[in-house]
Order: sequence, then structure tokens, then C-alpha cells
Amino acid sequence: MLAAEYIGNKSFSLREGSSQAPETGEVRLSVSYVGICGTDMHIYHGAMDQRVGPPSVIGHEMSGVVAELGDGVTDFKIGDRVVVRPLDWCGECHACKAGNTHVCQNLKFMGIDTPGAFQSSWTVKSRTLHKLPENVNQQQGALVEPLAVACHDINRAKVKAGENVVVLGGGPIGQLVALVAKAIGAEVLVSEVNAQRREFAEKYGLKTVDPMQEDIVEVVNEWTDGKGAEAVFEVSGVQPAVDVMGEIAAVRGRICMVAIHTQKPQVDLFKFFWKELELVGARVYEAQDFEMAIELLADSKIDISAFVTSVTALDSIQDAFGGLDGNPSGMKALVNCEVKAEI
Amino acid sequence: MLAAEYIGNKSFSLREGSSQAPETGEVRLSVSYVGICGTDMHIYHGAMDQRVGPPSVIGHEMSGVVAELGDGVTDFKIGDRVVVRPLDWCGECHACKAGNTHVCQNLKFMGIDTPGAFQSSWTVKSRTLHKLPENVNQQQGALVEPLAVACHDINRAKVKAGENVVVLGGGPIGQLVALVAKAIGAEVLVSEVNAQRREFAEKYGLKTVDPMQEDIVEVVNEWTDGKGAEAVFEVSGVQPAVDVMGEIAAVRGRICMVAIHTQKPQVDLFKFFWKELELVGARVYEAQDFEMAIELLADSKIDISAFVTSVTALDSIQDAFGGLDGNPSGMKALVNCEVKAEI
Ligand SMILES: [Zn+2]
Ligand SMILES: [Zn+2]
Ligand SMILES: [Zn+2]
Ligand SMILES: [Zn+2]
Repeated sequence: MLAAEYIGNKSFSLREGSSQAPETGEVRLSVSYVGICGTDMHIYHGAMDQRVGPPSVIGHEMSGVVAELGDGVTDFKIGDRVVVRPLDWCGECHACKAGNTHVCQNLKFMGIDTPGAFQSSWTVKSRTLHKLPENVNQQQGALVEPLAVACHDINRAKVKAGENVVVLGGGPIGQLVALVAKAIGAEVLVSEVNAQRREFAEKYGLKTVDPMQEDIVEVVNEWTDGKGAEAVFEVSGVQPAVDVMGEIAAVRGRICMVAIHTQKPQVDLFKFFWKELELVGARVYEAQDFEMAIELLADSKIDISAFVTSVTALDSIQDAFGGLDGNPSGMKALVNCEVKAEI
Repeated sequence: MLAAEYIGNKSFSLREGSSQAPETGEVRLSVSYVGICGTDMHIYHGAMDQRVGPPSVIGHEMSGVVAELGDGVTDFKIGDRVVVRPLDWCGECHACKAGNTHVCQNLKFMGIDTPGAFQSSWTVKSRTLHKLPENVNQQQGALVEPLAVACHDINRAKVKAGENVVVLGGGPIGQLVALVAKAIGAEVLVSEVNAQRREFAEKYGLKTVDPMQEDIVEVVNEWTDGKGAEAVFEVSGVQPAVDVMGEIAAVRGRICMVAIHTQKPQVDLFKFFWKELELVGARVYEAQDFEMAIELLADSKIDISAFVTSVTALDSIQDAFGGLDGNPSGMKALVNCEVKAEI
């Protein structure tokens, strides 16, 4: 089998090896496609070397086929097409005991804290698997993970049909949040400074605004006849978005914090008091978010194929990362990890 | 009848006049007791002159007796002992239509935006009234309004029995929030820098911490065995409280924003993402919060009498405000507005 190891400093090295036999409760997968996530780009830029510990196989947005079963695995069979929910939780902390294993206090994220999917063969716990239905193919399957992030965000913010929803930031996750909101019947506005990303959203029939050119507070006020948005998603990670999120929210609006703010921005807490706003953090996903994402694809509620900007073979992974670097119009680059002989 | 008018610059002027006859849907009350709120002190200091427009009768934490009925008022009779929920909503804005009249987009707060209760006779809409049961007296009744604020906060944060609750700030509202949380079965810790306020809380059997002397993050960690608090109430309005509120909250903890932050403090939004925290704004109260407050008093779940620091006659209102000014150990000063002859 072939594995691509991140070795630091924007570089990958290819390694031929033998695949890892599954232990009790584990499954060995033949990996099909693996998407490159914003987090992977972050790792590529060296920002997470201490956590990742190169050399290390990264990657976590994937589809695959069950190739080998460990002892005790009864709910999957060889040949099943699956995706991995890349979370490894402890089961013993306060969060796990409260049923929130996805925010386990000792959570290991597979592909960051433990080996990931940029390899032709990946051995994982069977509890991380979700089956793909017939009408969702392996390329679409590799987009289930980011779509599940969006589903989790939508569920955390309790978006309902007919509500006005604003998405601040039109990167891949912002676009997916917008599309899931639209799929469940909400009216959606995407705020994004990049023209190509606005165009991408518009092709999906989403309303857009360039916050550098227009006053988004006025735009939302007019759009909602003075009501404001019932749900606002902060997916940009910048102070100007934090400045407007409370303003554009309706009385009792829900603001979902999706972005990672490494600085501590100034927040207008008075607005939270005055309008009884809610701020809801959303991290990764739960099993039901994966099921919802798969269902949205199976029911053709979201045409996810347009998100695939490029497909690159595993042995050219270096080009895949290089091509995505500093390219805001690129949505999702897939790496093809299929090595036909392996099943 | 006698009215105390705030005339600006920490001054009140007494005015004898005739009482205002109730119009359709209105009720004239003989006012019993009126509490002095933090907002009233704010007005007294001149900070809200533009909104209040002196000369003006302020005051909104009151109890009274129905003295005269306007046309169409059928659910109250002369002699009923009542409290006023001092909110005047428009009924027509988006918030009102969504059922959230207490955060009406055109809300008038009675005693600030319209005449208040520091007078022996007050004419109000009957829809603002709640009846007092037999075993809640008029002095206790004057504390229903601040207690309803606390009930609203607790309800907004969805506090449940057995949860760990931290209250940041031990002023009158913070103490009441702590006592309501305790009354419904939560474990409560009050963080307060003032020794007299900590003592006040301790007399009620509340656990306290001085955040200037101890590291509250460590205290909460030890207290909850590393879990953190399911609910945190920010009632202090200062940056150091904002700094710790996310740290001391459990995974998926709810942080209730009660304080008025006129500055925009820096907020660790990363913590909201990472621990999937919720921030919930809470403003004034709804009808059910008043009912809950009255029930807590009727069922003797909270001994509210200890909150009454002083009782002053209406014609000495100047002394009541002066005595409370800059006195952090004072909890609630009541003004006695009873003019016996008036019913
Ligand atoms: Zn990802
Ligand atoms: Zn855990
Ligand atoms: Zn008050
Ligand atoms: Zn209204």
C-alpha cells in the first residue's frame, strides 16, 4: 500500500508499506477519495506541527470500501462503501458521559492527532463508519464529512423552514452551511468579499452580498423588513463579521460560531442582552449529522459535485496541496487514493 | 395624591396633585412599596436624563392595591393586592408578533420611558398586573420585580436541579439569581469581590469565592471535579468576569448574559467553538417569570425579607437614594408610598 506522509514545511513524502491488520472492533478500509480541508492546509503551512508531529499521515474527509474485518465487527461486510466520522473519543470524561462524545474532553481527531486517510489503506474503529447508499458515489462520499459539519452547524442553530439565514463567509464550509439551510427551506444570504466565491454561491441560487461594497446591516434590514435574521453563521473568523453579527440578527436570533477565532475579538455583549440573542458554538459533528448529510446527498437535495475543483492521484498529492494554496476560488480538491489491486 | 419627581442632578421634588383617572383597560393603583433599582440609581446619577426627560416620576419595582377600575377591566376588583410588570409593548413589531412582547422592538419601560411608581397613586394598563396571594405581603411584593428578573435569567439558561451554577457578581440581582437556582435544586457558587456581599450570600447557605484572592478557574475545577459549571451567570459587567466565564463553563455549558456591558469586551470565541458553549442574553421578564417569582415567595422557597435594607417614607425619598449611593452592602431600599386615605 501507498501512504503520503506530511514531513513538515509544505512537503509530503511517499512511503510504500504493508497495510495494518484490523484488531478487534476495527476495520481496514481501501481508501477511495480524500478531500483537502482548511485544517489540512493549516497543517501543510506548518501551523500545527507540534500537534501533528511529522512525519505523519494526515487527511480526514474520505470515502472508502471495507477491505478487511477485525474480530467482533458484525455490522459491516467486505465491499461495503463507507465514510469515516474521524473522531476518537474516550468514553469516560464528563462530556462523553453526558452523551456528547463529539466534544469529548480527551478527543482525538483522526488525521490530526492519529494517522489519517492520505493512504491507500486505512485501519479504523468500526464505530466511526457510516454506510453510503447506492446513489451516493465515492467522490460525493468524500464530501460527506464537510457536509456533516454544515449539518451540525444548522442543527446547533435550530434553523427552520421559512427563516432568514445569513452566512458570514463563503468558503467551502460557509457555502455548505448555506446550501443545507436552503435545502431545509430557509431564505439564505451569503456575505463574502471574494467575487468568485459569491459567483459560486449565486450559481446555486443563493443571494449574496459583498460587505466591502454594501452595508450588510442595511441589506439585511431591507431584506427582512426590519426583522433581522433568525440565524447567523459566523464562518469568516474576522473582527468585522463579529461586529455585525449581533446587528443583523433578529430579536432572539441565534448566532452560530463556526469560525475559529484565535484572537479574542471584541463582542457587543450589550446587543446579546438587549435583543436576547444566543451565541452557539458548533464543533465537528455527531453521528446524526453524518446521517443527515448522507440523506441530503441520497435525496439529491444538494448538488455537491460542483464543489470538486480538482482530482489528483495520491502520488501527486504535493501538486494537490500546491494548487489549492492561496486559491480562494478552489472549493474542494480531492486526492484519489484508490489502488485497484488492494480489495 | 403625592408624587416624587426626579428633576435631575440627584434631586427629587415632591408634588401634590390629583390622581389620574383610569381609561378603558386601565386600573388606578394605590401604591404600597417601591424598591430602588440599580437603574433608578443610574437615573439619579444623571446618566439617563435624555431618555427619562426630567422632571419625571420614576420607579418600577412596586406593590399596590387596586383603587379604581377603568372600563372593560373584568379580571381585577377594587382592593386586589397586585404588582406591576412594568413593560409597555406595541403588539405590532416582529418581536411582538413572534410572541416576545418583553423584547418588543418599540418597548417602553414604565418608570423610565413613561411615568413610574414613586407616587401614592399610579394608573397603569391592567394587562401589566399580577395578583399577590394571601401569604405574600406588600413589602415582599415590591421585590417580585427583581425576583422575576432572576427567574427569567434562570429560565433563559434552562437551569436544572443538580447542576453546578456559578454567579459572577453578588449584587441584588446576582444574589437573587443564586437563590432561585438554589431553590430549584442547583449547586451554586457566587463569585464576588465585596466581603459584605459574600457574607450576605453565605447567610443564605450559598458557597462563595473572592476572585481577587482565589483563582476561580481552579476553584470551579475542584468543585466540579474537572467538569465545569453547566450554567454561568455574568452579572458583574466587568472584563475579568468575561475572561473566565468560558473557562469555568462545562462542555456545552450555558452562559447567561445578565449584565449590561456598555463597552465591547474581548471574548474568547474560540472557547465557544471548542466546548460548544452557549451564550444567552436575558432582558427583563415575561409574564411566566412574574408568576414563578410570586410562587417562589408564596411557597416560602426564598426568604426575601432579608433583602430589605431600609424602608423610607415617600416624602423622604431623597434620603433613600442618598443612603443607597455608594453602599455596596445595601441590597434593597424600599420607599413607602402608602397614603392611607386614598382607597
Ligand atoms: Zn475537515
Ligand atoms: Zn471523553
Ligand atoms: Zn429594576
Ligand atoms: Zn412590539
